[in-house]
Amino acid sequence: MKLIVLGCYSATPRTFNNPTSQVLEIKGNLFLIDCGEGTQVQLRKNKIKFARIKNIFISHLHGDHFYGLIGLISTFRLLGREADLTIYGPKGIKQAIILQLKLSESWTNFKLRFVELESDEPELIYEDDKVTVTTIPLTHRVYTNGFLFQEKPNERNLNIKAVEDFDISRAYYQKIKNGDDITLEDGRVIPNEQLTFDPTSPKSYAFCSDTVYKVDNVPQLNGVTVLYHESTFLDEHQHLTDKTKHSTAKEAAKIAVKADVKTLILGHYSTRYGSIDVFKDEAQTIFKNVELAEDGKVFEF
Amino acid sequence: MKLIVLGCYSATPRTFNNPTSQVLEIKGNLFLIDCGEGTQVQLRKNKIKFARIKNIFISHLHGDHFYGLIGLISTFRLLGREADLTIYGPKGIKQAIILQLKLSESWTNFKLRFVELESDEPELIYEDDKVTVTTIPLTHRVYTNGFLFQEKPNERNLNIKAVEDFDISRAYYQKIKNGDDITLEDGRVIPNEQLTFDPTSPKSYAFCSDTVYKVDNVPQLNGVTVLYHESTFLDEHQHLTDKTKHSTAKEAAKIAVKADVKTLILGHYSTRYGSIDVFKDEAQTIFKNVELAEDGKVFEF
Repeated sequence: MKLIVLGCYSATPRTFNNPTSQVLEIKGNLFLIDCGEGTQVQLRKNKIKFARIKNIFISHLHGDHFYGLIGLISTFRLLGREADLTIYGPKGIKQAIILQLKLSESWTNFKLRFVELESDEPELIYEDDKVTVTTIPLTHRVYTNGFLFQEKPNERNLNIKAVEDFDISRAYYQKIKNGDDITLEDGRVIPNEQLTFDPTSPKSYAFCSDTVYKVDNVPQLNGVTVLYHESTFLDEHQHLTDKTKHSTAKEAAKIAVKADVKTLILGHYSTRYGSIDVFKDEAQTIFKNVELAEDGKVFEF
Repeated sequence: MKLIVLGCYSATPRTFNNPTSQVLEIKGNLFLIDCGEGTQVQLRKNKIKFARIKNIFISHLHGDHFYGLIGLISTFRLLGREADLTIYGPKGIKQAIILQLKLSESWTNFKLRFVELESDEPELIYEDDKVTVTTIPLTHRVYTNGFLFQEKPNERNLNIKAVEDFDISRAYYQKIKNGDDITLEDGRVIPNEQLTFDPTSPKSYAFCSDTVYKVDNVPQLNGVTVLYHESTFLDEHQHLTDKTKHSTAKEAAKIAVKADVKTLILGHYSTRYGSIDVFKDEAQTIFKNVELAEDGKVFEF
């Protein structure tokens, strides 16, 4: 998996800070997560081909996560896009986009499909042969979902030396990778574990923004490879989290500990602080493996 | 008058090209004209205080003139704005903005007023003690207006030597600037023209984008100080203007000649051309005093 952070600041776009948007690449598939104002320019700056984006996931309808979507769709249209586009987001997102397309008399020539979300329980909303995406119900000032991207179990790895020693035809390799035992021409049955190594563990990425500190989600997040969790505030402003429905860096770290994730990425920083390094320092008092999202930063895992 | 070009390219925001937005300053009052995606960042880059913007004029509801408006309003709200804001634009603009504020449960704490336009005739839509703004009906793929900003006639300039020679009290200076004659204590009436010089001519600015070449507007544009006229295309692509309802640089220059304007500013360039200098070259074959809009450029007149 490869995560490209297009923007990771809260509230408003600024000269050097972009609002939330991320591109997640899983085995060659691109998923766009959130789309604050200016996302299309960030996509260009990061040299991401627009045509590769076929699914867009919007966490909630606050401007810093959503106001770049209509412009991106409009640009897709102007560039002559033909491929279908599916948008997953809170109920109401379809009306907002359709109204603006209607007012500009700019109907897309590609198929635009909306999957509107309104459940408060996790829902499987996307599945292909490599990946599933499930909503993570979050608690914010408006209806909000995080998204859990999970690779499907990988194939077993062929033990090349073993299959060659048994003189097994290449025609059987895919069956062996799928876990099948093999019957040789002399009738001997070779158990799959003699022909393969264990597959690499499927990876997972959980995007949690915007939300208060919410332990209810820990079971769903258990063991994820990478957790992106918003950390709008430092500990000194913890008293603001109740009204704003945001989290602190320490609260994000507590979720990371409880869910036993491998890596925590912080983001959605308030711009009130001089440096973002302090977010890492505070989180690391609770959880060791912390990374800081920054606009344009790429994580591979 | 001072014109600050925030963005002047057509179609889509790009890494180094911003869609249409301009700030016009007239005697200390700021008017925002159009608001493509990213306008709020351009305002920050050009160090324009958000609080000074009280009136926003939107020509039409295509994305490159409009998709930055909801984000700007949202940012005004987040920054705690209290001053009223009035938005002038095509019918439908109110519904699009209100729907998005509703979906994000982000009602403004300042008064947001909409003046929705639907007439095909010029309308006086704004007036204060210094300025009037009148719509300029344009012809584009959707309902579109340009805007004519006109200074009100200036006060007469005081002839300091004359008023001192007649020993006239300062208490009468404003009356004299307003054009009144003065009766001295000895009964003599001094005609105003002996006490003042002619005022400087009021200036005017006409914003015409987006539109086809439209001679119907020439009488309304007659004699304006500065005409901003879109020039999406060069002459080689004149055949595209009919379908797209845009103009060429030469067509913009023809309007400037017919309306006898002082200065023509070109903008709304298609990004298909390598350099914008050619727009000026082509226009100057028809009209001499041509300037090129560029993002961040300031014109004083």
